[in-house]
Amino acid sequence: MTTYSNRKPRISEIAQLAGVSTSTVSKVINGRSGISPKTRTQVENALTRLGYTKPLVSTKVSRTIEIIAEYIENNGTIELIRHASVWGKRFQLGITVNQNNPGEPLNDCLRQIISRNPSGVIIQQLSKLSDEDRGLLDSRDIPWVLVDPVDVPEPDVNTISVDNWTGGFRATQHLIEQGHTRIGAISGLKRTQSAIARFSGYLAALRQAGIDYDPAITRESDYRSEGGYRAACSLLDMTNPPTAIFSCNDLTAVNVYKAAGERGLSVPEDLSVVGFDDVYPSAYLNPPLTTVEQPFDAIAEAAIRMIMDIRAGRDTDRHITLPTQLVVRGSVAAPRNG
Amino acid sequence: MTTYSNRKPRISEIAQLAGVSTSTVSKVINGRSGISPKTRTQVENALTRLGYTKPLVSTKVSRTIEIIAEYIENNGTIELIRHASVWGKRFQLGITVNQNNPGEPLNDCLRQIISRNPSGVIIQQLSKLSDEDRGLLDSRDIPWVLVDPVDVPEPDVNTISVDNWTGGFRATQHLIEQGHTRIGAISGLKRTQSAIARFSGYLAALRQAGIDYDPAITRESDYRSEGGYRAACSLLDMTNPPTAIFSCNDLTAVNVYKAAGERGLSVPEDLSVVGFDDVYPSAYLNPPLTTVEQPFDAIAEAAIRMIMDIRAGRDTDRHITLPTQLVVRGSVAAPRNG
Repeated sequence: MTTYSNRKPRISEIAQLAGVSTSTVSKVINGRSGISPKTRTQVENALTRLGYTKPLVSTKVSRTIEIIAEYIENNGTIELIRHASVWGKRFQLGITVNQNNPGEPLNDCLRQIISRNPSGVIIQQLSKLSDEDRGLLDSRDIPWVLVDPVDVPEPDVNTISVDNWTGGFRATQHLIEQGHTRIGAISGLKRTQSAIARFSGYLAALRQAGIDYDPAITRESDYRSEGGYRAACSLLDMTNPPTAIFSCNDLTAVNVYKAAGERGLSVPEDLSVVGFDDVYPSAYLNPPLTTVEQPFDAIAEAAIRMIMDIRAGRDTDRHITLPTQLVVRGSVAAPRNG
Repeated sequence: MTTYSNRKPRISEIAQLAGVSTSTVSKVINGRSGISPKTRTQVENALTRLGYTKPLVSTKVSRTIEIIAEYIENNGTIELIRHASVWGKRFQLGITVNQNNPGEPLNDCLRQIISRNPSGVIIQQLSKLSDEDRGLLDSRDIPWVLVDPVDVPEPDVNTISVDNWTGGFRATQHLIEQGHTRIGAISGLKRTQSAIARFSGYLAALRQAGIDYDPAITRESDYRSEGGYRAACSLLDMTNPPTAIFSCNDLTAVNVYKAAGERGLSVPEDLSVVGFDDVYPSAYLNPPLTTVEQPFDAIAEAAIRMIMDIRAGRDTDRHITLPTQLVVRGSVAAPRNG
């Protein structure tokens, strides 16, 4: 076996020993993507033999699963975290949370995660993963699962979705059944698959009932408070406002209540509201919100099981879609002139 | 150096080699408390030399901080988690979350945490830590910090508190300034220091204004939804209900709104409400809730800094109390007959 002196090894020496290019060595040292696990191991072995001292990414897999979300708030993320922590405990896995604000590159967040070498990563993002982001995880064989994927699921990406379309359909159908024909909608960002599907469910229910779609009573928002509030005000300040609003998440529905209350409108007497998510404080609003329940408990379980199945080399379904269901509470009534 | 055969070593052999008792060896193997780090290392070295194969707790410190809470919900826990994740990222630390339900022994949760060997632990519990729980962390030199300690802080326990008393005082004083004299209160569990301090602030403000304390218009609750709702109903169904309610957390205040709405009472015209925490959805309620803000961002930062200072052997203040402040929004008005 060759022995080496104590000086810092040159990249070219490492490359030669590993039988790869110098750029490949740089990639491994700097935790970059675009190399196969096999090549990575070759380079890492060469680094070890040459006494390279800069700490590399740990090779011991940590019994943790990392969750990445854009906002840790009541848009479903908290429910996902809470249920994941309960399931994690059963699997003897820690759940580590990461808030990656929309303006920040996911890359930095992923590098920190990789340095902790988790058992897997659950990603709930409203923006796309770049090829580089994917490479960071894939090249280290860290299983990752998209929850509520922003795009139509690609075959090679593990996904947990919910049946957003049926949820939107049932919410709207419920309003129609109570006699509403002038049903507004506040959607999420229409670049996300969940928002498109919920809104499409709304359109389909209208169409099935023979109600013409009126774009004037729909607004696009972002599943967050400020946007939801502005959209609600804008709908309720119309000369001929809708008699019901399908709010594509509960957080938006909270703001529809607020906008209605400020205008002296009672829910459900003057305005019917249906939400989506079934998260706090929906059941505790006055009146309690009728909404579409997402099965966060099952989502968390499915994501964790999928990751552990992949880790263990077990056959596993890589694309799971879970059902949603309407929870009828007190925020829908017949329209005043219905 | 002695060599050993491949058979499983006896506890007595391990004890002899380490120069400790057999019960000490058992304690190390089973991750129990009550041994010094030095003794633990001795035993672990003996185990290694004897080829003991059961995986022991990792000795490499993970760049994570674990948070333990009783409920991951909108009682401040979520804000703590969210801000900790932002601060953690700056410190290149992952934040791992654990929900330890009140019925479950903390011990199991701590054992899982210890097996991940985190940089530190932040504990937000409504129940006391047993000596054994403390021993589990102390014997491994894992720094831990109590946030909102359930008891008067002990000198040897690291704590981050908020000025609960002043918060309760200011909330009540604000109601008195608007002309209220019949001010009810819904407290948290009076076995917790935060609940006692907030309630004591309420009493002091009444006393200072020369208003007699009337136990008939106070209720003890548990900072959670169901309890808060029952307490609110019970106060509002009195023959002579209070004209204002100090709700000792926002989650309770949400339920005071609900109970008031169900009884046809308007906030603030018929009933003034002040909360405590300033967490979602307080700013989005109708009317927006006047409440006492807890500085969750500063709490998270202080807890993480304290842990990292202890880890680094830096001098650090082991007992920090952070200020609270009243946030005036729209839920307080003069009483109808004031």
